[in-house]
Amino acid sequence: MAIHNVVDQMDVKEAYNCWLQYRKVDNDKLFQLYFKSVAAVSNSLIIQSVIQELELAFHSMYGKGPDISQQIHEQTTLILATYQDIKLADYGLNGDIFQEINDEGYVIKSSKNGDKEAILLIGKTDKGVLYATHHLLRLIQTGETLKELNILESPRNKIRMINQWDNMNGSIERGYAGKSIFYENNKITSNMERIKDYARLLSSVGVNAISINNVNVWKVETNLITNVLLPDVAKIADILRAYGIKTFLSINFASPIEIGDLTTADPLDNDVKQWWKQKVEEIYRYIPDFGGFVVKADSEHRPGPFSYNRNHADGANLLGEALQPFNGIVIWRCFVYNCMQDWRDRSTDRARAAYDHFKPLDGHFLDNVILQIKNGPMDFQVREPVSPLFGALESTNQVLEFQITQEYLGQQRDLCYLVPMWKEVLEFDTYSKGAGSTVKTIVDGSLFSSKISGIASVSNIGNDVNWTGHTLAQANLFGYGRLIWNPDLAAEEISREWIQLTFGNDETVIEQINHMLLDSWGIYENYTTPLGIGWMVNPNHHYGPNVDGYEYSRWGTYHFADRDGIGVDRTMETGTGYTGQYFSPNKEMFNSLDTCPDELLLFFHHVPYTHTLKSGETVIQHYYNSHFKGVEQVEELIARWILLEDKIDSYRFHNVLERLKMQLKNAKEWRDQVNTYFYRKSGIPDEKNRKIY
Amino acid sequence: MAIHNVVDQMDVKEAYNCWLQYRKVDNDKLFQLYFKSVAAVSNSLIIQSVIQELELAFHSMYGKGPDISQQIHEQTTLILATYQDIKLADYGLNGDIFQEINDEGYVIKSSKNGDKEAILLIGKTDKGVLYATHHLLRLIQTGETLKELNILESPRNKIRMINQWDNMNGSIERGYAGKSIFYENNKITSNMERIKDYARLLSSVGVNAISINNVNVWKVETNLITNVLLPDVAKIADILRAYGIKTFLSINFASPIEIGDLTTADPLDNDVKQWWKQKVEEIYRYIPDFGGFVVKADSEHRPGPFSYNRNHADGANLLGEALQPFNGIVIWRCFVYNCMQDWRDRSTDRARAAYDHFKPLDGHFLDNVILQIKNGPMDFQVREPVSPLFGALESTNQVLEFQITQEYLGQQRDLCYLVPMWKEVLEFDTYSKGAGSTVKTIVDGSLFSSKISGIASVSNIGNDVNWTGHTLAQANLFGYGRLIWNPDLAAEEISREWIQLTFGNDETVIEQINHMLLDSWGIYENYTTPLGIGWMVNPNHHYGPNVDGYEYSRWGTYHFADRDGIGVDRTMETGTGYTGQYFSPNKEMFNSLDTCPDELLLFFHHVPYTHTLKSGETVIQHYYNSHFKGVEQVEELIARWILLEDKIDSYRFHNVLERLKMQLKNAKEWRDQVNTYFYRKSGIPDEKNRKIY
Repeated sequence: MAIHNVVDQMDVKEAYNCWLQYRKVDNDKLFQLYFKSVAAVSNSLIIQSVIQELELAFHSMYGKGPDISQQIHEQTTLILATYQDIKLADYGLNGDIFQEINDEGYVIKSSKNGDKEAILLIGKTDKGVLYATHHLLRLIQTGETLKELNILESPRNKIRMINQWDNMNGSIERGYAGKSIFYENNKITSNMERIKDYARLLSSVGVNAISINNVNVWKVETNLITNVLLPDVAKIADILRAYGIKTFLSINFASPIEIGDLTTADPLDNDVKQWWKQKVEEIYRYIPDFGGFVVKADSEHRPGPFSYNRNHADGANLLGEALQPFNGIVIWRCFVYNCMQDWRDRSTDRARAAYDHFKPLDGHFLDNVILQIKNGPMDFQVREPVSPLFGALESTNQVLEFQITQEYLGQQRDLCYLVPMWKEVLEFDTYSKGAGSTVKTIVDGSLFSSKISGIASVSNIGNDVNWTGHTLAQANLFGYGRLIWNPDLAAEEISREWIQLTFGNDETVIEQINHMLLDSWGIYENYTTPLGIGWMVNPNHHYGPNVDGYEYSRWGTYHFADRDGIGVDRTMETGTGYTGQYFSPNKEMFNSLDTCPDELLLFFHHVPYTHTLKSGETVIQHYYNSHFKGVEQVEELIARWILLEDKIDSYRFHNVLERLKMQLKNAKEWRDQVNTYFYRKSGIPDEKNRKIY
Repeated sequence: MAIHNVVDQMDVKEAYNCWLQYRKVDNDKLFQLYFKSVAAVSNSLIIQSVIQELELAFHSMYGKGPDISQQIHEQTTLILATYQDIKLADYGLNGDIFQEINDEGYVIKSSKNGDKEAILLIGKTDKGVLYATHHLLRLIQTGETLKELNILESPRNKIRMINQWDNMNGSIERGYAGKSIFYENNKITSNMERIKDYARLLSSVGVNAISINNVNVWKVETNLITNVLLPDVAKIADILRAYGIKTFLSINFASPIEIGDLTTADPLDNDVKQWWKQKVEEIYRYIPDFGGFVVKADSEHRPGPFSYNRNHADGANLLGEALQPFNGIVIWRCFVYNCMQDWRDRSTDRARAAYDHFKPLDGHFLDNVILQIKNGPMDFQVREPVSPLFGALESTNQVLEFQITQEYLGQQRDLCYLVPMWKEVLEFDTYSKGAGSTVKTIVDGSLFSSKISGIASVSNIGNDVNWTGHTLAQANLFGYGRLIWNPDLAAEEISREWIQLTFGNDETVIEQINHMLLDSWGIYENYTTPLGIGWMVNPNHHYGPNVDGYEYSRWGTYHFADRDGIGVDRTMETGTGYTGQYFSPNKEMFNSLDTCPDELLLFFHHVPYTHTLKSGETVIQHYYNSHFKGVEQVEELIARWILLEDKIDSYRFHNVLERLKMQLKNAKEWRDQVNTYFYRKSGIPDEKNRKIY
């Protein structure tokens, strides 16, 4: 019962347990009916974890554990098994349905064991059993009926991954919830219980892969693939494996030089190839099911194939070749752009970079190489168009990259529920093979029949007692897992489920928090950078407003506001031509001022402040309105939360309240700086004559 | 011969030796005539240093040392003595002239010893002998005649001080020339030779006091006044004493709590008073001639009397009382302002703060308390009016604070010779007692018959081989010492002398470098923030342009540029009333747009971009013009320097060349960002149609 070992103070237990509260269920009849006697027919490391979790959950919910045996007795009412370990016909199941689901899918079915009612949790493999178990536990916790269950589930995305941006000194790049749970003092932690609890949380929502170190691989982390540190990495992998999660490492492309004794890391050099082959063999001796490598190369000063006049395919294939014998994969990030841009240079457009670099290489990558593409062309802003690389790579494996950690989205001080944003990305129609070529059908592999694909995301957790700093930010980790398992789930379904699991089934609680979550992205956009312009943040740490913070920088992130107007002209006729990277009709839609959606207007067009939006407001008035409104909306969030004081434990209530107050302060600062900046620049007063400084 | 111990590589020797080159003099006759036989009649620790310096200098200049005795022989041609140790009449000197000079003054006189020509260096005290010796060495090195010398010199300012902003971890706040020479790894350095060489440099230009730790006194440095560290502080004081320099420490006002066992630091609390008395007694046991304390209190989050609802006089007098029995002094900084200002609040004006805080306390300070006042009301910007506190405090001891380290003036990457700026400050007429009430007469104590007063400045040195990062920045340390010794020296006299001592007497070298130095402040102003507006720098590190960098900050440093105009209204009628802090006619001059000097226009007035300056240009056109011109002028600096390639040793030549190239890059960045910013905001094109981005 790891969870109680790590945090046994009652007052923070709820914060720590996240959505695995296993809140007391006042229904002993249910226990007697279904859970008193369990048969775990199959056996494996993962099934052992399932049994542990069941015992923990039942003890917590019913105050007692089930009898568990490997055989099905006449008393047995809950049966766990893989589909090959049980006579399906005995329980009214047709084996054919397991052809419809993939290796991680499962069936939950109400049936009979003799004359007793019974529930079957049947996985295609043991991982399916694990996921089925969590499905059942969710049903119990949300108070759903357990009668006549007939559930068939299968994850839509093959790779469902988390990227930790943890450094071995214990810091986390863009981490807002404390220190790393994986490392301290340049060593791998000895606190494996916390990692185990993280694995429980991740597996409960279906995550099946994790890279455990920052994509920026510094000196110490380069050594993770040496025999000094591999034994410790293997310890982590052992834990994760028991929860169906594969371990990946981010590697330094210059490793052959830095930890080998080569003088080059040229991907076409035979010694380099040989070095990587031996290195991979060594890794697999420690971790037989090692997932593979994540690579950030030739980006923001990280080394890569460009140093040797090779391209990204050369670089990625080098590693792919070494990993192939072990079924390992290479995840190669497409976040490549010129981070030394001269702000004076208006012809270079960072938004174009990923497409320009990788489109020409389509089809040149090995089968076990996957390109990881950020959802937007820039960098996780509050609103970006979908990256035009989606749909453009027909013959290349792809992983979509989201960022759960709220780098540009309030840093877990401000509330921002991200599932609605992710939904929009997944539903976006690229038209690459005509209508219906949505992003979700690309990353689930169906559109281009990709061999492997999926979704990865930067984690938002650290060693804060509640994992995520802001307790409500737990919803993003949960929601991420649930959404990438099934992209057809609605944002609201996910949030409701999360609230129930996390805070219980009180209708006021559900309603108020649901409102808060579903409004939050829009609110954050309102008081920060509406109309798609992005940035305007303080450099380096990225929290709080600074309208010109990146305007004269080398990062390629400009708004070009002058006394007359604002926005980036990315049209084909007069701009950077970025719109041309999309398929028709998106190309034309974004390219034309008439059809470009308001919320992305300034991403694609430079317009006068007096330009009239489809909403009827002018751009400048919209800026004033949305900034005033955003602050009012944060005040409303606080009012909603305060209603729940008696319904939520003190620790979590005050944690969220304190964050909401920080958010209000931040929102006011955004409102006043942005309004003042644009009023000073445009000279156009607010129609409603509100206070602008 | 310390200098050669520390740096014995020939190629950096010149860089290290600064203005104490003691370059070979091709004139053996001179040596034979004057320096073969020296009598050092007086004896003291300082006289020992003088003898060491003479031996070093003569060996270096003539390849041989003098015979030195304490008695005057018939061979003696150079006589060193205090005026009481020698029969003045024997050498044609009237003792009365020593009544005209103060304790640190001296006479240099050509005379006869029997039938031989002789030179006398007669000090009022041994410190006078030291300063006289350096005066003589300068005459030799600059090739001046040694005939018929009849020099009477006396320093105008009593306190001639350097403030080190060194931290014990080895860093230097606002240091641009390497690490501290005083500390490393939270200990006092064991490299006393370098400190000795620093003492030689300082004493050679008359500096007589130094505070050896940062005015921001952090945890470790608080312990400098404990018996753990005082023995090491005493070692430093021993070295400095031999060069006539008194040691001061910056202290933490909260010391009674942090290193004592008191629960308060309230200046009116008897236990606190007692604690400081005992502490001071302890310090003087280690350092019998300890100078006293430097205190930054209630400023930028440092503790102070405000915590106990006491005022600055209470705080300063507490320490003054403790130091009085030992003739120690308290130097209490007036850099006090609200560093948590809300940018929305236009009524608060940081420029007013020092006057508002300290003017009401005039006359409330003990005799041995000195207020240290920055030259301008803000913080060492490229151009500020003189602080209105000068002249306003008639009954309070004052020290003027300059900053040699180029925090806002190019950080010793850009060239900026500061003596012309300091001259303007010293010559400024405050009119506090009618015309002629210049700042220099206030700080030299003459205007208000102050008991003690003088000038202090933040050092610009570190452990870089050339001490100052930019070799030409050595001129600022030299110039500071020479100017505060005699504020009537012209900036050009000082620079010429420095060039000759540093690079020799080649006329091309003198002419070109002199041009560079004398132009440099104006050039820096041209490409950064002309017309007195200041700031517009990158936050925190303060290098490079960022027009809005401090515009929405809490530091009280705003330009208020909007689409129509720019500047801070500090008038009495419509502004913050800051102009009212000056005496007439300065008050009226600054207050009126008609009479306010162009170079300070935007400090005092908010004007339209189209406002016409006295020069005939509009403000906006002046901004464009000066920024384009500034860059051209930096190119000219480079051209001048390149002319000297054959005339200057390689190390120093390339050090300066490299810095000039950095400066050019910086200047272009300033030009383009500032011009673009104001063009975008004003919409007014450059009349000359030059490139604005």
